[in-house]
Amino acid sequence: MRPRVALVMGSKNDLPKVEGGIAALKELGIPYEVRVISAHRTPDRAIAFAREAEERGIRVIIAVAGGAAHLAGTMAANTVLPVIGVPVNATPLGGLDALLSTVQMPAGVPVATVAIDGARNAALLAAEILALGDDALAAKLREQRLQMAKKVEEADATLQTG
Amino acid sequence: MRPRVALVMGSKNDLPKVEGGIAALKELGIPYEVRVISAHRTPDRAIAFAREAEERGIRVIIAVAGGAAHLAGTMAANTVLPVIGVPVNATPLGGLDALLSTVQMPAGVPVATVAIDGARNAALLAAEILALGDDALAAKLREQRLQMAKKVEEADATLQTG
Amino acid sequence: MRPRVALVMGSKNDLPKVEGGIAALKELGIPYEVRVISAHRTPDRAIAFAREAEERGIRVIIAVAGGAAHLAGTMAANTVLPVIGVPVNATPLGGLDALLSTVQMPAGVPVATVAIDGARNAALLAAEILALGDDALAAKLREQRLQMAKKVEEADATLQTG
Amino acid sequence: MRPRVALVMGSKNDLPKVEGGIAALKELGIPYEVRVISAHRTPDRAIAFAREAEERGIRVIIAVAGGAAHLAGTMAANTVLPVIGVPVNATPLGGLDALLSTVQMPAGVPVATVAIDGARNAALLAAEILALGDDALAAKLREQRLQMAKKVEEADATLQTG
Amino acid sequence: MRPRVALVMGSKNDLPKVEGGIAALKELGIPYEVRVISAHRTPDRAIAFAREAEERGIRVIIAVAGGAAHLAGTMAANTVLPVIGVPVNATPLGGLDALLSTVQMPAGVPVATVAIDGARNAALLAAEILALGDDALAAKLREQRLQMAKKVEEADATLQTG
Amino acid sequence: MRPRVALVMGSKNDLPKVEGGIAALKELGIPYEVRVISAHRTPDRAIAFAREAEERGIRVIIAVAGGAAHLAGTMAANTVLPVIGVPVNATPLGGLDALLSTVQMPAGVPVATVAIDGARNAALLAAEILALGDDALAAKLREQRLQMAKKVEEADATLQTG
Amino acid sequence: MRPRVALVMGSKNDLPKVEGGIAALKELGIPYEVRVISAHRTPDRAIAFAREAEERGIRVIIAVAGGAAHLAGTMAANTVLPVIGVPVNATPLGGLDALLSTVQMPAGVPVATVAIDGARNAALLAAEILALGDDALAAKLREQRLQMAKKVEEADATLQTG
Amino acid sequence: MRPRVALVMGSKNDLPKVEGGIAALKELGIPYEVRVISAHRTPDRAIAFAREAEERGIRVIIAVAGGAAHLAGTMAANTVLPVIGVPVNATPLGGLDALLSTVQMPAGVPVATVAIDGARNAALLAAEILALGDDALAAKLREQRLQMAKKVEEADATLQTG
Repeated sequence: MRPRVALVMGSKNDLPKVEGGIAALKELGIPYEVRVISAHRTPDRAIAFAREAEERGIRVIIAVAGGAAHLAGTMAANTVLPVIGVPVNATPLGGLDALLSTVQMPAGVPVATVAIDGARNAALLAAEILALGDDALAAKLREQRLQMAKKVEEADATLQTG
Repeated sequence: MRPRVALVMGSKNDLPKVEGGIAALKELGIPYEVRVISAHRTPDRAIAFAREAEERGIRVIIAVAGGAAHLAGTMAANTVLPVIGVPVNATPLGGLDALLSTVQMPAGVPVATVAIDGARNAALLAAEILALGDDALAAKLREQRLQMAKKVEEADATLQTG
Repeated sequence: MRPRVALVMGSKNDLPKVEGGIAALKELGIPYEVRVISAHRTPDRAIAFAREAEERGIRVIIAVAGGAAHLAGTMAANTVLPVIGVPVNATPLGGLDALLSTVQMPAGVPVATVAIDGARNAALLAAEILALGDDALAAKLREQRLQMAKKVEEADATLQTG
Repeated sequence: MRPRVALVMGSKNDLPKVEGGIAALKELGIPYEVRVISAHRTPDRAIAFAREAEERGIRVIIAVAGGAAHLAGTMAANTVLPVIGVPVNATPLGGLDALLSTVQMPAGVPVATVAIDGARNAALLAAEILALGDDALAAKLREQRLQMAKKVEEADATLQTG
Repeated sequence: MRPRVALVMGSKNDLPKVEGGIAALKELGIPYEVRVISAHRTPDRAIAFAREAEERGIRVIIAVAGGAAHLAGTMAANTVLPVIGVPVNATPLGGLDALLSTVQMPAGVPVATVAIDGARNAALLAAEILALGDDALAAKLREQRLQMAKKVEEADATLQTG
Repeated sequence: MRPRVALVMGSKNDLPKVEGGIAALKELGIPYEVRVISAHRTPDRAIAFAREAEERGIRVIIAVAGGAAHLAGTMAANTVLPVIGVPVNATPLGGLDALLSTVQMPAGVPVATVAIDGARNAALLAAEILALGDDALAAKLREQRLQMAKKVEEADATLQTG
Repeated sequence: MRPRVALVMGSKNDLPKVEGGIAALKELGIPYEVRVISAHRTPDRAIAFAREAEERGIRVIIAVAGGAAHLAGTMAANTVLPVIGVPVNATPLGGLDALLSTVQMPAGVPVATVAIDGARNAALLAAEILALGDDALAAKLREQRLQMAKKVEEADATLQTG
Repeated sequence: MRPRVALVMGSKNDLPKVEGGIAALKELGIPYEVRVISAHRTPDRAIAFAREAEERGIRVIIAVAGGAAHLAGTMAANTVLPVIGVPVNATPLGGLDALLSTVQMPAGVPVATVAIDGARNAALLAAEILALGDDALAAKLREQRLQMAKKVEEADATLQTG
């Protein structure tokens, strides 16, 4: 099945930061691809990837990067697909640099930013977007929320009886 | 036509911060509604709104709030529709409080955060999401990007001849 | 004895952050309950808990959460009981996100915020509030202050005598 | 009637920052006093005030200060009454200095901190504390919440009818 | 004469922020060009500009941008000419976002970052670089330093004589 | 010999943070005392200490504290002796809280603040102050500077030959 | 009378920031001089000034600077006189840059840092240092504290009767 | 061969922070020297070094320092050679202090600042500057960029087949 979500990281060192996102996409059965493309080291690739993504069937791009994190912005500048940015904690500034570099985009070119190191939520957000045209996926998301609530309730119950 | 995007603000004082978003939705011909609902002052309404949004035809919720900005998070906790958060600069901390309160969501409940005071980009992000199932809208977004580029090019040209 | 203070955490992972508070309540003999309730994952429970707390005999709610910490604010929006917020250090931002998300509440819905990871002080603040109507508890608090001072004095004395 | 809440500011320049708190106490009919006492310029007074407050009938102390805001901490160190700290925006750092100086208290001496420039919420928090032993006041607080919600709903309705 | 320094801004709104740099280049008689090119709105142009700059005789590129300031990084990713980044204060965060987005570049693609709103220093840094191969320019820079020192000394003298 | 410098810490846990200061005072042969006194837990002692210090022969007070670090400010409010504040890194905020709580004192009550965890420099500053009236100490300080320079020069030399 | 305190600013633009310090020195009758010397624009002068200060009778140097504020550090590196640094708010970062550049000195070379824009306190700190060897000055400082307290008390009294 | 780049650190403890820069200069075959010179502990040396550097054949100075990092600024104040500043993470503030102390230079005296702990990029920036007059070096830099891109592409390929 053609991937519908692309998880792109700026460096293979970011792989551990991406894994929460991969896991979430797998749980939901969303076809995806994982790529290493750098806005700064492979700018042509980054642009080409963003421009060809739609035609290749990608519907949402997730870009994961740290420091002066330009990957999501570069993607967003070259597609009208929704681009989700995951700022990662990769410098002594605790990810504040990546967060501001990702979220403070100028008017005209949005990036949907999630929490620092928040790849799982990026995947869930991608799923919510895809679910607008996919009732089965929407149902899975609703079910996932119920399970999530149930776990909290169980933890609460355990504490009471514990 | 039923609104597909809901622009929700926590207080009517945030209206000026919302206008950039309204303008963008109008330009693109996306039916929308503008609401005043507070996560803290009208919690029932906030939850009811989020839960009923999908059934009412809303596809994307944009939540605009400042300070300890919980509106987007409250919406996101009560729907699997994509929720976009716009942190606004409403306290002496320059919007850093609103940004962190909006973007640093826990795993499981994503909020797509845009720049501080970035309501226009929130609307464009909503449009990108809707455009996944609406080719005409996608075409408009591509056209808008071309116009945007043209304006920059014209400014550049003026400067050279100026 | 019915609990008078509720210590609520957003995730069972926060339990170690709550323990200082539990210890303080035990020392003072204040009946309490410890709960796991999430503003984002179990929003109905969070609201129901806050609304029913007063009737159940709870007098003070302590809410412990990290990141975009909305738990205290959600509680505060649904009760007129005093709500104490404990921001916890749970992300790479060192708890600054949780602090701002907890303390920067809009006018009308106060949260009494204590230090990052300050569950012990939250419990002591709850005790001070309860002590307004409980002379024995007030006496315990005064005694505790004396003991605390004594320990500092002893540490000072030890240092002098080497 | 003897004041039950003391609103203390470190300098008469802070008076505009205190007014939101005074207004809230008046609305709720809570007897209060407003004082100018400085932790740094009148340390004896500050300590004496804190120590005698309980005997004078004060139940909650609200301390308003900017910069290296020690007033609330000084009060808290000298009483077991609940002390609420209001950090004010009085330096080029936007109140971040006052916030951290007020909220980051060591274990043993809690200060209930509200938002930067949040004197109104400090007063409401004081009211919530007093309401634990005053059903009429609790009813007023509940009514106030209803009015607050109603205003948001009216703003929402106005917007819809345009 | 062919321009040797290119002053590029992301938006014509940044023109006032660029003027200090233009003035410095004029004072020193360095041929320059001023361009409006956006990393996000005209990505092709940005890349083409960076790639062709060397051939066109440009020796140093100065990129001026605010918010999630990617312009300097985009330039740097597409040339081995020295690229100087000027972060500008264009959002409620006082330029901290632009500073971190500009300076925190990943290993392999450097950006020479100057102060927030520091276009004058960017121009002087460009001049220092050019002066390595231009003794007359080096002499001008040394002279400028002497004049600068003299002005400080005169201000000092004036103050003494009152 | 009567101590001329008092090194006061808010908690015995701060002892490791104080040691650099003790070592510096020993090296310089300045009589000192080390005390544990808390602004919040032993307020009377703190004030009494500050008020009696001059009479006891103390010439400079060094106050070491973390978090909402009020110790130096409390000392300064109760003496006209120079008070040096050492903010320590004792919370997840990396000492920024202690720094702002120590340095941002209101007009009228100065605290001489040194770097986070900078007890050694606090001791040296105290020595510089005492050296104004003690030529032998001044000579020692000048000698120490020479030694310090020499060490840097040796490290440089080693690197060249190494 | 030979000046005993030197108030040095990095630029004549800082003069308004220095005035609070001048006023304080005048009130206390301390002979002073005001100088414009820049660590960056007149480095020789800065060093020479610091080295000759002691011989010229200066006992305390106050250095006032903004941005990457190196003036105090440069002075401190070239004298064993106490050097007081006043970070000023001169950039969009609200003085945080100047504060950190002034206070975070390496071990061996202390700078006594006061609040952002805190020239008055710098002067008072200088006075406290001089007062160690000048009983009349110490008496003036004590008197000033009394007056300061009295003003607070009067403001408090006015508010009660007002 | 005479060194053309000087890598100067404020303390030998910074050596590990400098190594990435040394490696990069070696890879590119640029003659360099590594020095330990402190702006605060050896101010004469620092100034002398900066003033004599040009005559000694140095073309670019790289200054590496943490905390109140004045080394780059001191160098820049005493030469018109390009000076590159590397702020290092050497205090509990994660290098934010060093970054601001290095980058926020006043108009007239530029420092080319790279990322926190970014010595490798400082070396590459120096190489870019030298390459303006050295085609072979420019070719090496272009080749290095190609290799860098190739590595990213390989990592991407491995991930696809992996």
